[in-house]
Amino acid sequence: MRTGIWLIGARGSVAVTAMVGATALRARLVEPTGCVTELPQLRGAALPGWGELVFGGHDIVTTPVLKKADALAAAGVLPGRLVAALAEELTAIEAGLRPLPAAGTQAGTAGRIAADLGEFRERHALDLVVVINVSTTEPLAAPHPAHAGLAALTAALDGPEPVLPPSALAAYAAFTAGCSFIDFTPSTGARLPALAELAERQHVPYAGHDGKTGETLVKSVLAPMFALRNLRVRSWSGINLLGGGDGANLADPAANAAKVASKQRVLGDALGYRPEGTSRIDYVAAIGDFKTAWDLVTFDGFLGTGMRMEFTWHGCDSALAAPLVLDLARLTAAAHRAGHAGPLTELGFFFKDPLGAGPSALAEQWAALAAFTAGLDG
Amino acid sequence: MRTGIWLIGARGSVAVTAMVGATALRARLVEPTGCVTELPQLRGAALPGWGELVFGGHDIVTTPVLKKADALAAAGVLPGRLVAALAEELTAIEAGLRPLPAAGTQAGTAGRIAADLGEFRERHALDLVVVINVSTTEPLAAPHPAHAGLAALTAALDGPEPVLPPSALAAYAAFTAGCSFIDFTPSTGARLPALAELAERQHVPYAGHDGKTGETLVKSVLAPMFALRNLRVRSWSGINLLGGGDGANLADPAANAAKVASKQRVLGDALGYRPEGTSRIDYVAAIGDFKTAWDLVTFDGFLGTGMRMEFTWHGCDSALAAPLVLDLARLTAAAHRAGHAGPLTELGFFFKDPLGAGPSALAEQWAALAAFTAGLDG
Amino acid sequence: MRTGIWLIGARGSVAVTAMVGATALRARLVEPTGCVTELPQLRGAALPGWGELVFGGHDIVTTPVLKKADALAAAGVLPGRLVAALAEELTAIEAGLRPLPAAGTQAGTAGRIAADLGEFRERHALDLVVVINVSTTEPLAAPHPAHAGLAALTAALDGPEPVLPPSALAAYAAFTAGCSFIDFTPSTGARLPALAELAERQHVPYAGHDGKTGETLVKSVLAPMFALRNLRVRSWSGINLLGGGDGANLADPAANAAKVASKQRVLGDALGYRPEGTSRIDYVAAIGDFKTAWDLVTFDGFLGTGMRMEFTWHGCDSALAAPLVLDLARLTAAAHRAGHAGPLTELGFFFKDPLGAGPSALAEQWAALAAFTAGLDG
Amino acid sequence: MRTGIWLIGARGSVAVTAMVGATALRARLVEPTGCVTELPQLRGAALPGWGELVFGGHDIVTTPVLKKADALAAAGVLPGRLVAALAEELTAIEAGLRPLPAAGTQAGTAGRIAADLGEFRERHALDLVVVINVSTTEPLAAPHPAHAGLAALTAALDGPEPVLPPSALAAYAAFTAGCSFIDFTPSTGARLPALAELAERQHVPYAGHDGKTGETLVKSVLAPMFALRNLRVRSWSGINLLGGGDGANLADPAANAAKVASKQRVLGDALGYRPEGTSRIDYVAAIGDFKTAWDLVTFDGFLGTGMRMEFTWHGCDSALAAPLVLDLARLTAAAHRAGHAGPLTELGFFFKDPLGAGPSALAEQWAALAAFTAGLDG
Ligand SMILES: NC(=O)c1ccc[n+]([C@@H]2O[C@H](COP(=O)([O-])OP(=O)(O)OC[C@H]3O[C@@H](n4cnc5c(N)ncnc54)[C@H](O)[C@@H]3O)[C@@H](O)[C@H]2O)c1
Ligand SMILES: NC(=O)c1ccc[n+]([C@@H]2O[C@H](COP(=O)([O-])OP(=O)(O)OC[C@H]3O[C@@H](n4cnc5c(N)ncnc54)[C@H](O)[C@@H]3O)[C@@H](O)[C@H]2O)c1
Ligand SMILES: NC(=O)c1ccc[n+]([C@@H]2O[C@H](COP(=O)([O-])OP(=O)(O)OC[C@H]3O[C@@H](n4cnc5c(N)ncnc54)[C@H](O)[C@@H]3O)[C@@H](O)[C@H]2O)c1
Ligand SMILES: NC(=O)c1ccc[n+]([C@@H]2O[C@H](COP(=O)([O-])OP(=O)(O)OC[C@H]3O[C@@H](n4cnc5c(N)ncnc54)[C@H](O)[C@@H]3O)[C@@H](O)[C@H]2O)c1
Ligand code: NA
Ligand code: NA
Repeated sequence: MRTGIWLIGARGSVAVTAMVGATALRARLVEPTGCVTELPQLRGAALPGWGELVFGGHDIVTTPVLKKADALAAAGVLPGRLVAALAEELTAIEAGLRPLPAAGTQAGTAGRIAADLGEFRERHALDLVVVINVSTTEPLAAPHPAHAGLAALTAALDGPEPVLPPSALAAYAAFTAGCSFIDFTPSTGARLPALAELAERQHVPYAGHDGKTGETLVKSVLAPMFALRNLRVRSWSGINLLGGGDGANLADPAANAAKVASKQRVLGDALGYRPEGTSRIDYVAAIGDFKTAWDLVTFDGFLGTGMRMEFTWHGCDSALAAPLVLDLARLTAAAHRAGHAGPLTELGFFFKDPLGAGPSALAEQWAALAAFTAGLDG
Repeated sequence: MRTGIWLIGARGSVAVTAMVGATALRARLVEPTGCVTELPQLRGAALPGWGELVFGGHDIVTTPVLKKADALAAAGVLPGRLVAALAEELTAIEAGLRPLPAAGTQAGTAGRIAADLGEFRERHALDLVVVINVSTTEPLAAPHPAHAGLAALTAALDGPEPVLPPSALAAYAAFTAGCSFIDFTPSTGARLPALAELAERQHVPYAGHDGKTGETLVKSVLAPMFALRNLRVRSWSGINLLGGGDGANLADPAANAAKVASKQRVLGDALGYRPEGTSRIDYVAAIGDFKTAWDLVTFDGFLGTGMRMEFTWHGCDSALAAPLVLDLARLTAAAHRAGHAGPLTELGFFFKDPLGAGPSALAEQWAALAAFTAGLDG
Repeated sequence: MRTGIWLIGARGSVAVTAMVGATALRARLVEPTGCVTELPQLRGAALPGWGELVFGGHDIVTTPVLKKADALAAAGVLPGRLVAALAEELTAIEAGLRPLPAAGTQAGTAGRIAADLGEFRERHALDLVVVINVSTTEPLAAPHPAHAGLAALTAALDGPEPVLPPSALAAYAAFTAGCSFIDFTPSTGARLPALAELAERQHVPYAGHDGKTGETLVKSVLAPMFALRNLRVRSWSGINLLGGGDGANLADPAANAAKVASKQRVLGDALGYRPEGTSRIDYVAAIGDFKTAWDLVTFDGFLGTGMRMEFTWHGCDSALAAPLVLDLARLTAAAHRAGHAGPLTELGFFFKDPLGAGPSALAEQWAALAAFTAGLDG
Repeated sequence: MRTGIWLIGARGSVAVTAMVGATALRARLVEPTGCVTELPQLRGAALPGWGELVFGGHDIVTTPVLKKADALAAAGVLPGRLVAALAEELTAIEAGLRPLPAAGTQAGTAGRIAADLGEFRERHALDLVVVINVSTTEPLAAPHPAHAGLAALTAALDGPEPVLPPSALAAYAAFTAGCSFIDFTPSTGARLPALAELAERQHVPYAGHDGKTGETLVKSVLAPMFALRNLRVRSWSGINLLGGGDGANLADPAANAAKVASKQRVLGDALGYRPEGTSRIDYVAAIGDFKTAWDLVTFDGFLGTGMRMEFTWHGCDSALAAPLVLDLARLTAAAHRAGHAGPLTELGFFFKDPLGAGPSALAEQWAALAAFTAGLDG
C-alpha cells in the first residue's frame, strides 16, 4: 500500500525528524525505537511498510530540509551521521514540498491545497494520502456560526473574510481531496460540526488532538495509579520549561492557553475529580529542544496522612513526537483502507486531548488501540 | 461473615495502623482512603464488612498497642485524635494478642500457634481466620531437603533442629489450623513445595509476597509506559532512605538483599529485558516513618536520542501498607469461603513479588483482580 | 536592655510563631535552632536576652493568639505541647495587642499608631521599641510626589486622600515615635526619600526588605558558587507552590509581582549578568504552610559543555521566618542603642532585597553582619 | 614563564580534555569558561599565559590522544569541531607522551620517571614543570614503616618489594627532579611524612587531593548555608551515578571507599558535627560521562520543625575537572617561582579533601585563594 504522508508544517522540527527517521528506517540504519506500530501486539500485515511511505508537505517558511536536519543534529535531537548518510533522500523529499498556497478567498486557498494533494497522489501513484498537521499551534480560534454545518461553511468560505483557522482549512481541503487527516497539535483541526459532516460525506477518517509525548504521558499512568489505589490526590502542579520553535510559539499566551487546557484533562478523567493546581509552560531559549517538566503531586493516604511525589521529565520533544507521527500515519492509512470513516476514537493512546469519550488511562487506551489494530488485519 | 485477622507481628507499625484504621472505619470516623476494596469496581456483597473484622495476633515484643498507636500519632503516621477516640476498642484488641509461643521442637511450636488460632476462632465465633505476616523481614532462609515435600517436612519438624524460618512455620501452623495465609513481607512464608502440598490438602488459599507500597508501585506503572511506547530503558537506579522499625531491620544486609531482589523484578517483567542499575535501601533514623525514594531512569527514544526521568516518592509506609492489609484480609476471606484454595495469583496487584506468573503491569494486575473479585460475588 | 517588639500583623503566622518561640526560649523549653544571633560569632553582650523581649502589635483581624497558635500546631508548624505549656504567657501577650487604628486623615492614623507605641513603651518600661512589619504583602504602591521629601509628605498626610501605603505609614509612625523599623515583607515600608529624611532627623535605624527564608536563600549560595567557578549560568527558572495566609495573598497578581521581582535580584548581583528564566509563585491551598520550591539551573562549563542542576526546597516558611524576626529585633535594638541611625545595610544577610548596595552572596553578607555585630559589643 | 604540565594519566578523559582546552584557549577558539584563574580577582601577571603551557605525560595505555579526543566529542564532553580544528596541535602533544616506565626496583622506576621529566624540561626549554596526577584512583594504600621518614624510604625503594603506591612514587620522582606535584585524585600522592621531608629538602610545593567538581562542590556551599542560619542538619544522604572510565574504576569497592570518605569530610567541617547518612557511588555504564548525583538533606528549623531539601546535579565530570587542572598548574607554577615550598594549603578551593586544616566552606576557601594569588603578583 503506497501511502503518502503530507505534513502541514513540513519544515518544522517534528516533521523533519519524522522524515529523517522514516528514511533511516527504510534504509535499515536504525532500530524502530519509539515506534509503537513495531511492537509485536500492533505490527501487522495491514500497515504500510517503511518502504511504502512517501513524504510531501506545506510550510510557510523555506528553510531547506537538509539545513533543518543539520540544525537538529547540532542540537542533539538526531545523530549527525544519519543526516550525512541520507542527504540524497532528504534532497529528494525537499523537491516535493510546496509553499502553503493562498488565494483571495478561503475556498480558493482550500482548492489549491487540495490540488497540491491531488498532484502529490498522482505523481507518486499513491493508494491514499494522510494529511498530518504538525505546524505551529494556533491561538484558540474564534467561534463562527458557519462552523455549525457544512452548507453554511461552504457558503462562508466563498466570502472575503476568513472563517476557519489554518488547521481547520487544512482539514477541509484534505477531506475534499479524499484524504484522511490527523491533528498532532492542539489547534482546531477537524473539530467543527461542519467538518465532521464533510468527513462523513467523503467517508474519510480523522484523529487528534495534540501528541502526548511528555508530562501528560506520565500523568496518564500516574493518575490511574493513584485512582486504582484509592489514594486522594490533593494537588497536581506542573511546569514545563522548553525552548525551540514550539517553545517560542507557546510563549504567546493565547497558544499557551490551548496547550495548558489539554494538559490537565487527563487528571479529571482518570481520577473522577479535578485536583488543585495548574500546569504551566515557560519558554526558556537556553533549554532548547530538550524540555524539562517538573510535577509535584500531593495526596492523602489512609486516615488522611499526607504524602507527596515529584518527577522531573527531561525529554527531547521532537524525538518523542516523530515516531508517533509515523505510527499515526500507518494506522490511519490502514484504517482508511479498511473502510473506517469519521473520528478514530481508538487512537486516544497517542493524544493529550483525544476525540471522543474514550478512556484517558494509558493502559486502557493501549487495550483499545490493540483491539482496533487487530481488527484492521481482518 | 465474621472474619478473624490474625497478625504475625501484631505490635508493629503496619499491624497497629491497620487495627486503628479498621476500628475507625467501623466507627465511621474516617473515609476509606487507600482501601481498594472500597472502590466501586471491587466493593461487593462477598466481602466481610468493617464491622465483621476481629483482630488478634502474635508478636515477640510486649509494647502495648495503645502505646504504639500513640508513637505512630506522634510521628505523623496517623491522627492523634483517632487514637484518643478509640482507646477503649484498642485496649480490647490488646487483650486478644498473644506472645509468639515456643516449644522444644518446631512441631511443638506450630501446634501451639495453631492452638492460639483455634482458641481465637472459638472465642469470637469466627466463620474463618486469615493469618497475615507483617512481622520483621527475615534473612534469606537456608534451603533444606525437607522443604521439598510434606512428609519429609512433617518428620523433620519433630527433630531438634529448626527446619523452617518463622514465617514458614507460621504458614504451616495456619494451614494445619484450616486458616488462609498472606505474606505481606519478602520472607519465605508459604513459598515451599511442602507448604503448597499442605495448603492443597487443607484446601486453604494463600498469597504474597511483599506489599507494594512505594517505589515499586510507581515502577509498576512507569515501566509499562516505557514498554508501550517502545522506548528503550537503558538504566533504572534507585535509592530508598527510611528510618522506623522496618528501616532498622533492613540495615541488616541479609534482610536488605531479600527486599532489593523483590524490588527489581517488575522491571524485567514489564520491559522484557533487565536494564542496568540497582535499587538500594539505606537506613537513616532521622527520616523516620516517611520514606524517601529517588529513582533515575535513562532511556533512548527515536534514532537513539538519550533522555531521562527522575522521581522522588515521599510516602508513609505504614499508612500505605495498612489499608492493603485490610483489603487482602477481606479478599482472602471471601475467596476462602468461595472455595478457592492454593496460591491466589490474582492478587498480584498488591505485591512486589507476587506468586505465580501473572502480569507485573499494575493496570493488568488490576484487571485480573477486578475479574477475580467479580467472580466472588457470583 | 528591656526591648519592645511591636509587630504589624501580630496575629499572622510569622508573628505568632515568633511569639511562641521567644516565650519558649525564655522558658528554656527549646534550643535556639534557626536563631543566628545565638551562633558563637554573633552572640554578644550587646544583644537583649530572651528574657528582655516584650511583645505587642497591631492587626486588622481579631483571631486570638492562642487560637492561631493552635492552628499552627495542627498544621505542623510548631509543637502542640509548647502551645499548651505556654498558654498563660500567650494570653498575657494577647492583652497587649491592639486593632490597627484608623482616623479621618493618614496624619491622624499615624498619630494613633504612635500613641499605641508610646503607651506600649511606658506600660512595660521599655528602653526602646522595634517595630517590625510582618503583615500581608501589599500591592506595589503608586508613586506620589509627596514621597520625595518630608515637608511635602507631612503636608499631604493631612489631606483627605491616602498618600502612603499602610507599611510606609507604619514606618512613618514608628519614626515619629522614636522607634526603629524593620520591614520583613516586600512592601514599601521605609523605602521613600521622605521617610529616609525622617529617620535621619529622628536618629533611628531601619532595615528591610523581605525575609530570605527559602528559594532565595539557596540562590544566595548557589549563584556565587557558579560565579566563583566561572561557570556560565544560562537559565534559572523556579516555581514556588504554597498555601497558607501568605500564599493566598500572593495569588493576587499585584502582590505576586512585588515578591517575584525581589526573588530574582540576587542572580544579577551574584553573577554579574541576568540569566534567562523567571521565578513563579502559585497558590495551592492543599500545600498549606510547608512551601515547595523547585528550581532548574542550566549552565555551561569548559568548552561550552551544557550541564544542569535542580533543587527542591520543602520548608516551613513561618518556622524559617520567625527566628529571623527575633534576630532582627535583637540586632536592631542593639544598633539603635549603639547610636546607629538610617538604613542598616549590614543586615543584608536576612533579606531578599536588602537596602543599600551591599553584597548579595550569603557568605559576604555574613562577614558584613559579623563585623557589624562585633562593633556593637565595642 | 614557559611552564611544563606533565600529566600522570595523560591519555585519560580529564587529561585529554585539559589538553584540548588549553590548546583551544591558546588559539583563542573558546572562552575560558570554568577557568577560575581567568576571573578578575585571580587573573594576574604572575600566572603563565595560555601560550606558555607545554604538555607531556605518562600513561599505561596507548590510545592516541586524538582518538580519545574524538571519543570525548562523540560523548558530548567537548565540541567535535575543536578536535578537528586542533588535530595538528594534538598530534604534536602526542609525540611528547611517554609510557609509564618500570624498572626492577621502585628506585629504578622513579629514576626513569625523573629522567623523562628532565628530558621534557630540556627539550622545551621550560622554566619549570608541574606534575599532575590525573590517573585512575588507586585502592587505599597499605601503611609501611618506610613512609615515616626520607632515609628509611630511600633505603626501602632499593629493595625488591614495592613500598609506595604509584601516585606516591610519581610524587617522589617529581620532587627528586625539582618539580612541583599536584594530586587531583584521592590517591596517596605526596601525603606521606617521607615525601613531605623530600619536598621541603627540594624546596618544591605540592597540593591535593581530589578535585572538587560536583556533589561535593555543592555541599561546600549548602552546608555553610545551614550552619550560618543555625539550622540543624539531621541527615545528608547522596548517591552518585556515573559511567565512563572513572566510574568503571570506582565500581571497585576499594577505590570507591577512598572517594566516598573524601566526599563526606566537608559536612563535618562546615557544620561542626557529622549528620547521619552516607554518599554512595554506583557505576552505571549507560550514564556515561555525565554524572548524576542526588542528595537529600533533612534538617530541623525553629522549635524543631522538620524540613528537607534535595538536589540533582547533572554534570560532565571531565568538563568540570579539566579547567581546574589548568588553574592548578598555573597557580602552582607561579607559587613555585615565587618561592613557595611544601603543602599549598591555600588551594583548598579546588579539592574535596585539601591538605592542611583550612576552611571547607567554598566562600572562605575562595578568600584564602584570592589572598594567596594576590601575594604571587608581588
Ligand atoms: N514535539 C512534541 O512533542 C509535540 C507534542 C504535541 C504537539 N506538538 C505540536 O506539534 C507542532 C509542531 O511542533 P514543532 O516542535 O515541530 O514546531 P516547529 O516550530 O519546529 O515547527 C512548526 C512548523 O510549522 C510551520 N508553520 C507555521 N504555520 C504554518 C501554517 N499555517 N501552515 C504550514 N506550516 C506552518 C512553521 O514554519 C514551522 O516550520 C506544534 O504545534 C506542537 O505544539 C508537538
Ligand atoms: N510498610 C510497608 O510499606 C511495607 C511494605 C512491604 C512490606 N512490608 C513489611 O511488613 C513488615 C512489617 O513492617 P513494619 O513497618 O510494621 O515493621 P515493624 O518493625 O514496625 O514491625 C514488625 C513487628 O514484627 C515483630 N516481630 C519480629 N519478629 C517476629 C516473629 N518472629 N514473630 C512475630 N512477630 C515478630 C516485631 O516485634 C515488630 O513488632 C516488614 O517485614 C516489612 O518489610 C512493609
Ligand atoms: N514566612 C516567610 O518565610 C516570609 C518570608 C519573607 C516575607 N514574608 C512576609 O511576611 C508577611 C507575613 O507572612 P505570614 O505568613 O505571617 O502571613 P499571614 O497572612 O499569616 O499574616 C499576615 C497578618 O497581617 C495582618 N494584616 C494584614 N494587613 C494588615 C495591616 N494593614 N496592618 C496590620 N496587620 C495587617 C493579617 O490580618 C494577618 O494576621 C507577608 O508579607 C510575607 O510575604 C514571610
Ligand atoms: N573528572 C572529575 O570530575 C574528577 C574529580 C576529582 C577527581 N578525579 C580523578 O581524576 C582521575 C582521572 O579521571 P578520568 O575521568 O580522567 O579517568 P580516566 O579513566 O578517563 O583516565 C585515567 C587514566 O589514567 C591512566 N592510568 C591508570 N593507572 C596509571 C598509572 N599508574 N600511571 C599512569 N597512568 C595511569 C589510565 O590508563 C587512564 O588513561 C581519577 O582518579 C578521578 O577519580 C576526577
Ligand atoms: Na528531582
Ligand atoms: Na527532585
